[in-house]
Amino acid sequence: MPTFKLTLAYDGTDFSGWQAQPGQRTVQGELETAWREITGETVRVIAASRTDAGVHALGQVVGVQTGSRLTAAELFGGINAKLPLDVVLMSIEPAPPEFHATHDARRKRYRYQIHNDRRRPLFDRGRVWHVPQPLEVEAMRRAGQALVGEHDFASFQSTGSERESTVRTLFTVEVARGGGEQAAQVRIEVEGDGFLYNMVRIIAGTLVEVGLGQRDEQSLGAVLAACDRRAAGKTAPPQGLVLLRVEY
Amino acid sequence: MPTFKLTLAYDGTDFSGWQAQPGQRTVQGELETAWREITGETVRVIAASRTDAGVHALGQVVGVQTGSRLTAAELFGGINAKLPLDVVLMSIEPAPPEFHATHDARRKRYRYQIHNDRRRPLFDRGRVWHVPQPLEVEAMRRAGQALVGEHDFASFQSTGSERESTVRTLFTVEVARGGGEQAAQVRIEVEGDGFLYNMVRIIAGTLVEVGLGQRDEQSLGAVLAACDRRAAGKTAPPQGLVLLRVEY
Repeated sequence: MPTFKLTLAYDGTDFSGWQAQPGQRTVQGELETAWREITGETVRVIAASRTDAGVHALGQVVGVQTGSRLTAAELFGGINAKLPLDVVLMSIEPAPPEFHATHDARRKRYRYQIHNDRRRPLFDRGRVWHVPQPLEVEAMRRAGQALVGEHDFASFQSTGSERESTVRTLFTVEVARGGGEQAAQVRIEVEGDGFLYNMVRIIAGTLVEVGLGQRDEQSLGAVLAACDRRAAGKTAPPQGLVLLRVEY
Repeated sequence: MPTFKLTLAYDGTDFSGWQAQPGQRTVQGELETAWREITGETVRVIAASRTDAGVHALGQVVGVQTGSRLTAAELFGGINAKLPLDVVLMSIEPAPPEFHATHDARRKRYRYQIHNDRRRPLFDRGRVWHVPQPLEVEAMRRAGQALVGEHDFASFQSTGSERESTVRTLFTVEVARGGGEQAAQVRIEVEGDGFLYNMVRIIAGTLVEVGLGQRDEQSLGAVLAACDRRAAGKTAPPQGLVLLRVEY
C-alpha cells in the first residue's frame, strides 16, 4: 500500500487539538475529511505529535497509508483545496511502507512565543502568551542551559501522562528577543529527541518566572533533580506553542 | 478644552472600516464607545486616515478634544481595558488645542503585504493578498521608482473620489521580499505627503502586474502621464494594506 509523509501547518486557535474526537473540530478530523473527499477513501492518519487545543504547527508530520493511485502532486493540490483556511498542507512525498510518523520521529523542535509588552498583542493575539512585565531575556537564556543534555524531566511533566520513562535529551534551549517590529516578542526554542506531556509549556512557564525575577536563574538544576512537578513553574498557556519541525 | 493625540493599532478583518456608520462595527465606533465608558463623555474622534473595510493599522493617529480631567496615563489604561481585542491603543499624549489629525498630517507611510507562494497563507491569511505565481521583486522595485516625486496620480485613484487636486508627492516606494520565515512575503512600502482614494492598492496591483511579467517595468511613467484610471492595474484587495505611521 502506498505510504505518504505529509507536512502540515495549522493555526490551532479554532481546533480542539490534533486528535479526532466525536463532535469536536480537530486537525486530524479535517485532514481525514479532506482525504476522503479527494480519494473516496476513509483513512486513519498518524501524526508525529498530538498537539493540544490551541497549539499551532508549522511543521507537523503526518503519515498516511492509502489505496489511492493519485500521485503526490495530485493529492497536494486536491487536499489543499479541500482543507479549511486554518490548515495548510505544506508538502507531501512518498514514504517507505513501514514509515510511522510517531515512532520514527528522532528530533522535534518547538517554539514558545511570548508577547512581552505592557500593551496587548494585536495580530499575534492568538499565538502568544501576553506577559506585560519586562522579561530579563539574558537570565532566561542562561537558566535554560541547565536543561540541555540528557535528564530526567519528571519535574517538567503534567500529571496524568503514562509514559514509561521520563528521561529525554534536549539538544538546544534558545531564548531570544525579536528585532525590529518583533521587539515585543520573546521566543523560546527547544529541540529534543522527545517531549513529555506539557514539557515545553512547563519549561516556558518556569523560564518566565526566571525572567520576572521570581525564580533564581541557577535553580533549574535543582528543579530537574527534584523529579517533582511542584518544583517547576506554572504551565504556560497553549496558544504560545508552535510545533516547528520533526526530523526522522 | 484638553486635546489628546492617540496612536491606534487595529486588525481590520472584522471591521467595516474606520468611519462610524449606523449598524456597522467600525474602529471609530469602538473607540468612541470605550471613551464614553471611561469618561462618561460622548466625543467625536478624528483620524488621520479613514481606512476602508479590511484595512489594518499599526500607527493610525486620532485626535480627541475632551472635557475629561483624566490624565493621559489614566486614559491609556482605561481605554485599552475597554477596547476589544482587535484594537490596541499604542500611546496617548497631550496635543495643542488646534491639533487636527486629518489636516495636520504631513507624511503617511503604508505597507502592502503580498503572500507570494503557491501554498496558501496561514497565520497571515487576513493580512495579505495571496499571489501564487512567482513575483519578480527586483522588476517591481525598479518600476516603482517612476512614482517617486511629485506627480499627478489621477491614474492611481478610484473613481468617485472628490479631492480637488490629484497631485501628490511620494518620498519613497520600496519593494522587498522578506527573509527567513518571511521569505514568502513581498512588501511594498510607500511614503508620501498624502494619498488619493485607493492609491496604495492601485500602485500595489500595478506593481504586481509588473512582477508577473504582464506589464513592462518601464511603463509606469506612461501610466502617470495618461491621467486615466484605466491605464493602471487592478486595485489590490484591502486586506493586504496596513497604515504604518503618520507624521505631523
